[in-house]
Amino acid sequence: MTNKKEIIAGIIIIGNEILSGRTQDTNTSTISTWLNSLGIKVQEARAIPDIEKTIIDTVNEFRKRFNYVFTTGGIGPTHDDITAASISKAFNIRYGPHKEAFSILEKYYKPGEFTEGRQKMGCMPINANLILNPTSGAPGFNVENVFCLPGVPSILKSMLGGITNRLVGGKPILNITINLRTVESEIAKSLSEVQDNNKDVEIGSYPFFRAGRLGVAIVLRSSDKGKIDKSNLEIIKFVKEKNIEIVREE
Amino acid sequence: MTNKKEIIAGIIIIGNEILSGRTQDTNTSTISTWLNSLGIKVQEARAIPDIEKTIIDTVNEFRKRFNYVFTTGGIGPTHDDITAASISKAFNIRYGPHKEAFSILEKYYKPGEFTEGRQKMGCMPINANLILNPTSGAPGFNVENVFCLPGVPSILKSMLGGITNRLVGGKPILNITINLRTVESEIAKSLSEVQDNNKDVEIGSYPFFRAGRLGVAIVLRSSDKGKIDKSNLEIIKFVKEKNIEIVREE
Repeated sequence: MTNKKEIIAGIIIIGNEILSGRTQDTNTSTISTWLNSLGIKVQEARAIPDIEKTIIDTVNEFRKRFNYVFTTGGIGPTHDDITAASISKAFNIRYGPHKEAFSILEKYYKPGEFTEGRQKMGCMPINANLILNPTSGAPGFNVENVFCLPGVPSILKSMLGGITNRLVGGKPILNITINLRTVESEIAKSLSEVQDNNKDVEIGSYPFFRAGRLGVAIVLRSSDKGKIDKSNLEIIKFVKEKNIEIVREE
Repeated sequence: MTNKKEIIAGIIIIGNEILSGRTQDTNTSTISTWLNSLGIKVQEARAIPDIEKTIIDTVNEFRKRFNYVFTTGGIGPTHDDITAASISKAFNIRYGPHKEAFSILEKYYKPGEFTEGRQKMGCMPINANLILNPTSGAPGFNVENVFCLPGVPSILKSMLGGITNRLVGGKPILNITINLRTVESEIAKSLSEVQDNNKDVEIGSYPFFRAGRLGVAIVLRSSDKGKIDKSNLEIIKFVKEKNIEIVREE
């Protein structure tokens, strides 16, 4: 189901708060949805703790394996924000005050308020490209194929638009969802045959429970509309033969 | 911050639907919260696609690195459910009908309804220990230190209780949260000093935006209540000195 033209990405979610269960990560879903629309497929999302060696090793593994790597979290001003320093070590680039970032933060804060505590937010690999932050001033940054974003979901979302034109995507990944009033075991065999006939389409089957009733969402994904349409028709055919109701609204 | 007595776990979230952004994973948070209460610390959560080799390699890496491994997803009846077969390969155990699982499923369904499509849900490493499913019949399973759970959050939740007594935990990880009406940069330096004085307590700092106002949640985590209390007092001390408001309700 993988082809060689695919542009692939990995996501690194940095932060003890995710692994303690305190915070529900939503950034993976936000970044993945956005990358899909650009024709970039996420192949792994990994949540790791605030440990320098773990961050360095993971970034160095990911930047070799994937066309693009996105990190979230750990770029704030406190002692547990160690992403920028760790990325500097991963790339062996000096960590320190970033001229342009300092200039942005000096303008963002009132005179005298760009304190020592805040200056840390302007420290990063000194030659990084900035990712502007329209929400709260402190920028993210990008070194080679690695893009470092904050952990706060609303701020992260506001920064993605500024990166879009730095990414070279593939064909957008299209998808069709067919919601059926059935259970998976009723359609498993027929669906498997459709998958065998359509190897380039990723066919997923996801049970759902809504308004007290069971159903199955069939999701077809491919960058080739013709191939999606063909497998869609084959599914509709067996669905009709089995007298299974198609649910119009998900 | 890591000590050698720690019992550690890894979570593997299996499913293209997570990486496409279609489905928001909530199982990491559910499993992590539950493990914390048992004194088991989650050190990594990794979302991977429905690709056999990736599942095998990840399981084999995790079961060596962690005391316990939890997988979610891919144990249903459809063609994209390949977790059970992949786990069998990872452990080099025969994959096939599991006697006890078949017996459970035969009783769960009406006579004649334990069809071929459903029989797949009773196939797994043939000597696995079952994890009973009080919600929808089809069991999960456990081989050595690897526990395989379904992806549907409500079903997964209902199955955790049945595993608790198979796990040997450490001291429960305690936590205290202090919510402050401030911004991170105001407290970064003082908080860093408290962390330096209390190396065995994990101190996290998380900005929040609620009811239109900014705040910072300080989270202290340790299995030693005395150490948490000591760092808590040190934080309260500098908070009072700085005249920062403590927000009673999160």
